[in-house]
Amino acid sequence: MDISLSILDSFSNLTRIAKTNLKNNDVSELITKMVMDSLEYLSIQSVKENITSKVPNKTYFQFRLKNDVSVSRPINSSLFVDKIKQEDIFKILKSDINRFKHSFISQLIYTMAMSYCCAVDLLKKRDQKTPGTYFEILIGHIFSKKYNVNPDKKIQVINLDKKTTLPTDFVFNLGTEKSRIHLPIKTSTRERVIQVWAHQRVIDGVYGVNKFRGILVCINETNKQSKDNSVIEVCLPGQWAIYQMYIARMYRVYYLDIPEKYALMSKSYPFIQVKEFADFFKEADDLVVGKSI
Amino acid sequence: MDISLSILDSFSNLTRIAKTNLKNNDVSELITKMVMDSLEYLSIQSVKENITSKVPNKTYFQFRLKNDVSVSRPINSSLFVDKIKQEDIFKILKSDINRFKHSFISQLIYTMAMSYCCAVDLLKKRDQKTPGTYFEILIGHIFSKKYNVNPDKKIQVINLDKKTTLPTDFVFNLGTEKSRIHLPIKTSTRERVIQVWAHQRVIDGVYGVNKFRGILVCINETNKQSKDNSVIEVCLPGQWAIYQMYIARMYRVYYLDIPEKYALMSKSYPFIQVKEFADFFKEADDLVVGKSI
Repeated sequence: MDISLSILDSFSNLTRIAKTNLKNNDVSELITKMVMDSLEYLSIQSVKENITSKVPNKTYFQFRLKNDVSVSRPINSSLFVDKIKQEDIFKILKSDINRFKHSFISQLIYTMAMSYCCAVDLLKKRDQKTPGTYFEILIGHIFSKKYNVNPDKKIQVINLDKKTTLPTDFVFNLGTEKSRIHLPIKTSTRERVIQVWAHQRVIDGVYGVNKFRGILVCINETNKQSKDNSVIEVCLPGQWAIYQMYIARMYRVYYLDIPEKYALMSKSYPFIQVKEFADFFKEADDLVVGKSI
Repeated sequence: MDISLSILDSFSNLTRIAKTNLKNNDVSELITKMVMDSLEYLSIQSVKENITSKVPNKTYFQFRLKNDVSVSRPINSSLFVDKIKQEDIFKILKSDINRFKHSFISQLIYTMAMSYCCAVDLLKKRDQKTPGTYFEILIGHIFSKKYNVNPDKKIQVINLDKKTTLPTDFVFNLGTEKSRIHLPIKTSTRERVIQVWAHQRVIDGVYGVNKFRGILVCINETNKQSKDNSVIEVCLPGQWAIYQMYIARMYRVYYLDIPEKYALMSKSYPFIQVKEFADFFKEADDLVVGKSI
């Protein structure tokens, strides 16, 4: 099969399987195939172009389709690796990271997320939905394998007279002895992020504070400015602080390519714990028990 | 000047003036001109086509550009009037509605909102932003003239160590004796509506519950299904109830073309007061003083 068709075909299989059994090993196999196919497609069909970075201490490039105007989203040069081993992908998907260095974990997971997103950028114009769905499945799969449970996408809202359900991002039930997890996943947040805190607020209201711990996972906050072909990071730490103070408490925010302005938020009130996603693997067990912060 | 150029030109003047002085009479004049121009443009350049309504007790049509494939959003047949008088537009903009019947007020305001939106649908493809901005200025202008004060678009968030501001929809300060108004305005809500309750939550948290009364104004919730050229209304009353119970209390929701499912929400807990926008003119003075509901 033509590799670009194969990439698109795998995606429809992925969404179908992930819907019923996200922690299934078939999901691992499909993700691995999609990453390998995407990396091969990018290496054959595109060239790398440097773009101007206006983000301190980070450099970015983009993929350009050969003999075409299509370009991908910007990629952080220090986090993307051109070749990765299938076995390493399988290892990270099952949180088997003991023999990996922290920086290599960051590169692996970033490359796994961005290789497919960039391939789709070149294969399908203006398609924001497919990369978002893929990233949601990738992160949801890692969580569901780590905690060995499939998530729901709705919660029961019980009140005096009638029952109703609220559609949510992934929620994981880890049994009565542990906190549950509310896991919104977004490639980047932009102005829509207030929804994350608002959903956490509803869940806290229905089930009690700290029954569900809110964990937001994002790739990055990069924005390409076409006027001068440069990359900036769009961050609104002041607004995040207000949401954390007045709407609800998010327990963690993980980034694959963490913006410095958000990383600093853990240092000052209201102390939002924004971290590299590589840290998740180390603290996953602690996230759902009674430790503070 | 060509009428289609005139419509687009008026819009840029409107946004410029509205930004600095929304209650200015120049805004009334520009809105009036835009409505009259849009109605003329639609009557000359387009034809009306019936479309299938799947909404009980409502019929819809659309404008189609002559000799072209472009069509407008769906229009409620009983609310849209082809010709209106300039003097009636001026009257409604200054809330001078004593001699108007309730049903005529509904028709006037609906036609004023939809004529320009439909003209833009035919003039500029895929432009969602311009109609939204126009509708925000139209409703914001009516409020600012009614209460004789210009709104802000941010609030100060004061806490122990530092001041910061939160960008908001329009907020009106009516003096110390009255509630202030938090006025989000959207052509329709879709899944973004949780933001409205979340912003109300932040404002309640910072200033105290009921200091700002939340009033959401929308045109409608229609959605055109292209597969069979029909119109449905997309409503999520169960989710609205959850937001009202667990995030914040919205004091009013006004619609120009009110969906039956939302109109019924005032009858059962949590009693969200969803009403026709024509009701605003009658209760505007009561909205900001100490009456319940």
